Amino acid sequence: MANKENEKILLAHGGGGQLTEELLRNHIFPKIQNKTLSKLGDSAELTVPSNELCFTTDSYVVKPLFFNGGDIGKLAACGTINDLSVAGAKPVALSLALIIEDGFEINLLEKILESIGQIARENNVDIVTGDTKTVERGAADKIFINTAGIGVKIPNTNLGIDKIEAGDKIIINGTVGDHGMTIISQREGIKFDSPLKSDCAALTDLTCKLLENVNGIKFMRDPTRGGLAATLNEIAKSSGLSVKIKENDIPVDKTVQAAAGMLGFDVLAIANEGKFITVVSPDSADEVLNISRKHPLGKEAMIIGEVVTSSNVPVVELVTRIGGKRIVQMPYGRELPRIC
Amino acid sequence: MANKENEKILLAHGGGGQLTEELLRNHIFPKIQNKTLSKLGDSAELTVPSNELCFTTDSYVVKPLFFNGGDIGKLAACGTINDLSVAGAKPVALSLALIIEDGFEINLLEKILESIGQIARENNVDIVTGDTKTVERGAADKIFINTAGIGVKIPNTNLGIDKIEAGDKIIINGTVGDHGMTIISQREGIKFDSPLKSDCAALTDLTCKLLENVNGIKFMRDPTRGGLAATLNEIAKSSGLSVKIKENDIPVDKTVQAAAGMLGFDVLAIANEGKFITVVSPDSADEVLNISRKHPLGKEAMIIGEVVTSSNVPVVELVTRIGGKRIVQMPYGRELPRIC
Repeated sequence: MANKENEKILLAHGGGGQLTEELLRNHIFPKIQNKTLSKLGDSAELTVPSNELCFTTDSYVVKPLFFNGGDIGKLAACGTINDLSVAGAKPVALSLALIIEDGFEINLLEKILESIGQIARENNVDIVTGDTKTVERGAADKIFINTAGIGVKIPNTNLGIDKIEAGDKIIINGTVGDHGMTIISQREGIKFDSPLKSDCAALTDLTCKLLENVNGIKFMRDPTRGGLAATLNEIAKSSGLSVKIKENDIPVDKTVQAAAGMLGFDVLAIANEGKFITVVSPDSADEVLNISRKHPLGKEAMIIGEVVTSSNVPVVELVTRIGGKRIVQMPYGRELPRIC
Repeated sequence: MANKENEKILLAHGGGGQLTEELLRNHIFPKIQNKTLSKLGDSAELTVPSNELCFTTDSYVVKPLFFNGGDIGKLAACGTINDLSVAGAKPVALSLALIIEDGFEINLLEKILESIGQIARENNVDIVTGDTKTVERGAADKIFINTAGIGVKIPNTNLGIDKIEAGDKIIINGTVGDHGMTIISQREGIKFDSPLKSDCAALTDLTCKLLENVNGIKFMRDPTRGGLAATLNEIAKSSGLSVKIKENDIPVDKTVQAAAGMLGFDVLAIANEGKFITVVSPDSADEVLNISRKHPLGKEAMIIGEVVTSSNVPVVELVTRIGGKRIVQMPYGRELPRIC
């Protein structure tokens, strides 16, 4: 029997022949098995409980592949689950497509798949279909993962940026900047006394609880690439309303703040992978806070600001800790490549 | 105004900020626009006409990106449409995820997206959701594309490898090996008097016509990676029945045959991108042939063989042109990397 530690991906593993089948049977399926997937076929057959669906996709190219709090597999499962969740849907099925560089260690592939399988099981989402491609050495950086996802809309929810009105409160479920600062610090080889940890997590359980129990939720969004700054600017731009947030009310981990300061980043523009904002009518804000704070992923939930009428061009305005004001701009985009 | 020829993808185009938005608005959306996509959001909202769905995904890493008969974009749209089609579904929505290397020419990206948009429009399938990631130079080979797709099952179809019985006929809609031999010849810089051309095409229109008009269709599959050899071996392995095919009845383009001979390939193991086999009860075989031959993608349709009981281990047996017999094995997988 071959020493598992030494097994590597070969180009032929992506050839669609005998070796592809062995890779699937011995290394991939055992980690993500479920009833639908086991039928194989190029397409999965699904019976969905509703005709109202959400559909989303994301590719993951994060570097490094393994980081404190997760890995590319956990990210790929959570990210797509979260995109469905904040759209007001309950995720039901994921696809999984791998692009792997010749020579990649199969035991690392298995660890990544184990993470995907665990998140899928914890959130009652099946990986129902997939694809494995290989490319020669130097043609890809180790492994890239794509997941697409189907969710069914939660009845009686009707979220949309167009529903947002002046006076609505903006709530976040916890600290910002953790994922991005963990990745960049690990990449730069910087260590802190209290270690940074990615917030990577699947939000479905909490978003479903909120949507099923609170009226008055207008919009949800997970501030990933571009961070809170990008999400809030998108709201301002699309709604024509301004957003006013208070620095004092935005939860930030102390080490994340210190790391961001040291490396010259604005935590508001840093990617999160287990956070979402909820825009809610003022009379429902406390209900969102209460439900969130009872949930493991919402203990530090805060109202961080509100939507206001804009006399001129809509902007995102931050009231700083010392009472000053600054405009939070849409990030340009070059801050943090390969963060997810 | 910048010279369009010189515009290149930057890492910041994948940052989720201002530059990502500009790339989407100026270069991506115009090529693939439709009503659902224009709503943006991280998830698309879809109302599907049936609860019985098919769901599939494929990543495309073909090299070269542009080839006679198509490009990576056409391949990415057709491939996923075809996986749904041969599963007995009518494709309704695709996702599109791009991984692009820093420095990739935006005018090439636009050509690729134009191809995707054209196939989508021709087949009444919307690109409803997407993702764009960038990686630094050397971390990917130009561009990789993932498409996932949702289809609705065609009523009263019930395809499955388990439905196949001894006596069933195997029909292919045209010549085999065109796509793979086109790619490998172009890669090796070999030219022929009569040029090779990929068969890359969307099969939906023909598969739907067949499924809506012919009873007795048991199974369909598009022989892509691993070619006819892989597909027929999968049938033998899964059904426990043998497959007998006749070399004389398998349509092969003369130049493809010559190229395969010269380069030492077996056309049966070469990838196709616009072909599918239909396994059908013997009394319905003529109907499949008739409908196929009236369709632009089925003019050269042929019954290439049949399913037979196997006295021992199920195999795929080829009756050669001179009346000899040889076993067609499952390809190992290393024949043709990055063929799709």
